[in-house]
Amino acid sequence: MTFSFEIVHKSAETSARLGMIHTPHGYIETPAFIPVGTQASVKSLTPEELFGLGVQVILANTYHLYLRPGHDVIGKLGGLHRFMHWGRPILTDSGGYQVFSLSKLREICDSGVTFQSHIDGSRHLLTPEKVVEIQETLGSDIMMCLDECTPYPATRTESQRSLELSIDWARRCKESRSPEGSALFGIVQGGMFEDLRARGVSALTNIGFDGYALGGLSVGEPKKVMLDVAAFTLPLLPSLLPRYVMGVGTPEDLVELVSLGTDMFDCVMPTRNARNGQLFVRTGTLNICNAQYRDDELPVEAGCPCYTCRHYSRAYLRHLFMAKELLAYRLNTIHNIYFFMTLMRKMREAIRHGRFGLFKRDFYSQRTNLSIDD
Amino acid sequence: MTFSFEIVHKSAETSARLGMIHTPHGYIETPAFIPVGTQASVKSLTPEELFGLGVQVILANTYHLYLRPGHDVIGKLGGLHRFMHWGRPILTDSGGYQVFSLSKLREICDSGVTFQSHIDGSRHLLTPEKVVEIQETLGSDIMMCLDECTPYPATRTESQRSLELSIDWARRCKESRSPEGSALFGIVQGGMFEDLRARGVSALTNIGFDGYALGGLSVGEPKKVMLDVAAFTLPLLPSLLPRYVMGVGTPEDLVELVSLGTDMFDCVMPTRNARNGQLFVRTGTLNICNAQYRDDELPVEAGCPCYTCRHYSRAYLRHLFMAKELLAYRLNTIHNIYFFMTLMRKMREAIRHGRFGLFKRDFYSQRTNLSIDD
Repeated sequence: MTFSFEIVHKSAETSARLGMIHTPHGYIETPAFIPVGTQASVKSLTPEELFGLGVQVILANTYHLYLRPGHDVIGKLGGLHRFMHWGRPILTDSGGYQVFSLSKLREICDSGVTFQSHIDGSRHLLTPEKVVEIQETLGSDIMMCLDECTPYPATRTESQRSLELSIDWARRCKESRSPEGSALFGIVQGGMFEDLRARGVSALTNIGFDGYALGGLSVGEPKKVMLDVAAFTLPLLPSLLPRYVMGVGTPEDLVELVSLGTDMFDCVMPTRNARNGQLFVRTGTLNICNAQYRDDELPVEAGCPCYTCRHYSRAYLRHLFMAKELLAYRLNTIHNIYFFMTLMRKMREAIRHGRFGLFKRDFYSQRTNLSIDD
Repeated sequence: MTFSFEIVHKSAETSARLGMIHTPHGYIETPAFIPVGTQASVKSLTPEELFGLGVQVILANTYHLYLRPGHDVIGKLGGLHRFMHWGRPILTDSGGYQVFSLSKLREICDSGVTFQSHIDGSRHLLTPEKVVEIQETLGSDIMMCLDECTPYPATRTESQRSLELSIDWARRCKESRSPEGSALFGIVQGGMFEDLRARGVSALTNIGFDGYALGGLSVGEPKKVMLDVAAFTLPLLPSLLPRYVMGVGTPEDLVELVSLGTDMFDCVMPTRNARNGQLFVRTGTLNICNAQYRDDELPVEAGCPCYTCRHYSRAYLRHLFMAKELLAYRLNTIHNIYFFMTLMRKMREAIRHGRFGLFKRDFYSQRTNLSIDD
């Protein structure tokens, strides 16, 4: 097993930490944001572009790749890295979230969960053992345990039942992994209940994983609740292992959660919002379809050195977007990923130089207009 | 006026010729294929990628840009080259073809043609003078005269009426162009009638243009008819000026028409077919969605040095295409444009070295399977 994590520097004022994850496909400086490449592609971009934007690791969705083209196909072709021409680290989720959010006919039984494909309606059974097998066949660098993403709102009873199921599945994932296999992370559920989250941490750390994720966040709860859950759960996790908050989030979320000691994030926000015309800037966001940009010769963000801002006006980006040109999605995605990668890099630099508190104040002082074109 | 054309070499066995067009934005080696960037974007690709693929000149559609974002917007932002970040030559069509193929409510009057926008139903009048003004505002390097694309089939009477209209419009385009303005090409119509085509050439050359195009081809007529019309019309055109066959064509069409002395082509085939999953190879075409490619680890074409073939298997391209991933359209387009650019480059090299006849025989000997997966 060539997976390891080291903490390089700790913030004095906050719980933020600078770290380094080593994987069979290279290292990841943390805190790290992981763009989502659901179907073995970060939508519209090549691996070379991702690397050039500062992307260190991408997430691929086990559920999608299992259904199409099939993990067997990818395994036969030499694994996911080779299949998609991305030689750096890949984290795969367990498919659990997608089973509960995308598929139909979910039936949980002793062995796992039966569901119908959202593509062709075919029936499938995912078990903890199967999910590990799929991720190992894909050749993932960081595998995630099968879990049930507790919905919001959920009663204490529902949250507890769901938590115990996820703990049992996590144990079975750990038991079924190959010796000397890829890293495997546990996912802490427990809804919005402090004691259940603590129970989750305790049970998972007893089993023992290479890192720990907080799941079941950003599922509709108020922002403050999300941050509260993270604030009381993160300190319970082993301090020497990576801490990963799944499915989060906005630039503000990232800053707050890094401050609380989070090392890893994934979210579709920079890529999906780009395809919807929402672009991230220092002061907030702008929506490129707004009429005010019709003949605006400025770049998305003055001074931004990304490819999009170096060469194109808001007017051209608006034109491409209104005309549904494929290049629109690509240029918008380049800018948004660059924005997220730069935010993470600046946070890492601030932690390294002992000025993360100052960074946070500066960051918020610039967020003057969360949607500058509203 | 900085537009000029020189003939560098002539094929002894055929009418093929190697030439060089000089424009305010650089030169174009001919015979040249012009990829189509309808809405100020060659779909899915950046200008840097186009240049890297060997693209020398692109075509933008006057009709589309007039309607969206408006030539006034593009003019205000410094012209089309700056707007779309393409510093090399741009040819613009006149919009005539799109008025007749895309818009509704076409009414031809003395002054021009009234039509309804395919985008929002708004009414517009395009006149020869307006079409020149739009193209000059865009900053086109090579402008085309407004013409009526005679449909197929058309009677002799219909074809003649249409031809005379196009001749009148061409005269008005020539008269309305700015002194020292961009190059302006006339478009020869005349349906499939030899004497009408000859009448078109005679009338247009009397007016005098910087180059001459054959219009009204590839509009549904049999392949042999298209080649016959080109064969009897091309020799009538001034031999020292560029000859452009519009809207053509397949690799075979390009080889035949170069052989007949054509210098320029434009066609949506490499880009549109790429987005439909049809990829061009030495022996013919393959359709990437076919099930036989599900776990095919070969590139689209063995030995092809394009970015797509260097890094991706047919299996991955099929997966992206089936999953409707944006990267699919891009990787397919890269391969197809590279194929067309390479075909043109090989033809230019063959003409230069006095072996175009040999090239043609080799080309056809390789076309063993026009759709290798049928």
